[in-house]
Amino acid sequence: MSQVYADRRGRLRDRCAAAGSAAALVSRPANVRYLSGGSPPGAVLLVGVDDDVLLCPRTPTGDPAEGRLDEGLRLTVLPPSGGDPAVSAADTAGKAGADVLAVEEHHLTVARYRAIESVAPGLRIADLGTAVEQERIVKDEDEITCLRIAAEITDQALGELLESILVGRTERHLALELERRLVDHGADGPAFPTSVATGPNSGRPGHRPSDRRVEEGDFLSVCMGANYRGYRCEIGRTFVIGTAPADWQIELYDLVFAAQRAARESLAPGTAYRDVDRAARQILDGAGHGEGLAPFLGHGVGLEIEEDPQLAPSAMGKLDACVPVTVEPGVHLPGRGGVRIDDTLVVRQEADGGPELLTITTKELLAL
Amino acid sequence: MSQVYADRRGRLRDRCAAAGSAAALVSRPANVRYLSGGSPPGAVLLVGVDDDVLLCPRTPTGDPAEGRLDEGLRLTVLPPSGGDPAVSAADTAGKAGADVLAVEEHHLTVARYRAIESVAPGLRIADLGTAVEQERIVKDEDEITCLRIAAEITDQALGELLESILVGRTERHLALELERRLVDHGADGPAFPTSVATGPNSGRPGHRPSDRRVEEGDFLSVCMGANYRGYRCEIGRTFVIGTAPADWQIELYDLVFAAQRAARESLAPGTAYRDVDRAARQILDGAGHGEGLAPFLGHGVGLEIEEDPQLAPSAMGKLDACVPVTVEPGVHLPGRGGVRIDDTLVVRQEADGGPELLTITTKELLAL
Repeated sequence: MSQVYADRRGRLRDRCAAAGSAAALVSRPANVRYLSGGSPPGAVLLVGVDDDVLLCPRTPTGDPAEGRLDEGLRLTVLPPSGGDPAVSAADTAGKAGADVLAVEEHHLTVARYRAIESVAPGLRIADLGTAVEQERIVKDEDEITCLRIAAEITDQALGELLESILVGRTERHLALELERRLVDHGADGPAFPTSVATGPNSGRPGHRPSDRRVEEGDFLSVCMGANYRGYRCEIGRTFVIGTAPADWQIELYDLVFAAQRAARESLAPGTAYRDVDRAARQILDGAGHGEGLAPFLGHGVGLEIEEDPQLAPSAMGKLDACVPVTVEPGVHLPGRGGVRIDDTLVVRQEADGGPELLTITTKELLAL
Repeated sequence: MSQVYADRRGRLRDRCAAAGSAAALVSRPANVRYLSGGSPPGAVLLVGVDDDVLLCPRTPTGDPAEGRLDEGLRLTVLPPSGGDPAVSAADTAGKAGADVLAVEEHHLTVARYRAIESVAPGLRIADLGTAVEQERIVKDEDEITCLRIAAEITDQALGELLESILVGRTERHLALELERRLVDHGADGPAFPTSVATGPNSGRPGHRPSDRRVEEGDFLSVCMGANYRGYRCEIGRTFVIGTAPADWQIELYDLVFAAQRAARESLAPGTAYRDVDRAARQILDGAGHGEGLAPFLGHGVGLEIEEDPQLAPSAMGKLDACVPVTVEPGVHLPGRGGVRIDDTLVVRQEADGGPELLTITTKELLAL
């Protein structure tokens, strides 16, 4: 596995060299993990000066959340009063004779940037931009395997909940129960805070679980995912509580389902990001729900739950094979509730069977 | 309650005016919440230009985690493609004729800072520094009430766990169970990820729960806390599993307890931060445990779990009344385990009864 990280760092080094930077300082935790196998809290990675060095404020513990560090990487643990590892890294780069250091301006704070400038006055600071994020978009098969396992865990946890009695339980309790089940099935933790929304809350994107209890006749929408070895997936489903969904519920569900299917079916290498969004948006818009729609239909997933690409009306770019994305349209009717259906899929060539669905829990409208 | 937020913003406006800044842009979420009552995701607060304005990327939902916004505050919700609210705020400040805008350089990224600079070229950008964080150190009685309730919830959740059977259960399960109980008792959530550490892991600061199961003879250390209306407290306790603690366990426990007591007793208005740290550190150091100690003994708590002041050997400053802090010494013996004892207390005048202990779970060495 060690070679994978060395190769990734090699590509970054080449990219920096082409842009005229001798060295790169990577501080965004998911980027550090991508390039070194682990992200001990506060660690930064210096690439391109002699050896690559990971600078940590304390000894890494090897916990799953921190990952497993590439053993080929040089590790420097700063003393307790050692200050900001990014500043130490800049100092190291300056002393090693680097002339230009590329930093992640979208992650470093102004205060840290100023501290870096002042410790190495001979060093010119350039912007690395989102170079590492761009590298992370297309996943290798080991990464996709982690996502697949994360999705299996998620499907199991959700499936167990569906077999239990739901009426009378609060959104908060159901969310905590789902997170416990994720961990029971081997997740390192939830990929993001689990959302359980009932009745008028259902279908609201990013709803935080409240003390509202599940009632007969409710829509119940769940959005959750497992973190497995740092890789995060996402599933969203909406159910009806009771035996007979109302007509408006069936109608709204069928509409969102049709929008979600259209977007899923549009996933292919070469499809523009915005066209995936449009495939779903035009169906919902055509049914008169254009106003309240979320600003994007889906997004990449991986070491972070929201990565590039964004599947949105103004997004630039086209899908590649081996890019995992979410497809998550929803409609929320204020005061009544709504429907969200969310899957994680991997873009694949048609010859390879087309989009690979990772989250396989049924999308039939279940009455629970 | 509204007047409280207006008063806090008034103090910030005065401070900015004294430093020559017409307006301040507050972006750090806990600071936004302190000054406006709420912190909708991504919101920023512009203070000092006509009305104070809260700029949000989407409509605030009023969830407990987001707080309850001061109704006297002007609210601007940006459209879905409205970009960075901090940039809109700078634009607003520029159009309103402000000449200097103070920003939180320790929170804003370089990329956001550059975007602010380019949208309002006539505006000089100054550093607000940690002005709001400094205001937050001394709490009012309403804030202390929230912390007291958070501590009560935490004591209840921990107390219930102590009554259950522990042997054979994993650290992860115990941690999840504790977090569920926090929510059961009315917490908005855990104040920070709950740490449960057993056997050789016990006493390690910041230990992330693993799959290790509780065994007879183990030390079991727990560090947890509730978030109640945004206010976060912390408790740490160490127990022995089984009926008879070993001699080394009793000895180590008594030592850490003595260090913790000495530090608690040193809490008074006017005591230097470093002297609180030293009260505990010299006892542990004198017993030969100086090497592996954490770099600080405790810290402030409030809207964040680690706030100013830091109780550390090199910290500058003195305690005031109504400052809540943690006192959390610990010793970890590699391969064997260790002890941590952690309380949240409020500094009070001696005439008011001295330090107020918020986390009242017993510190006797319990054998469970």
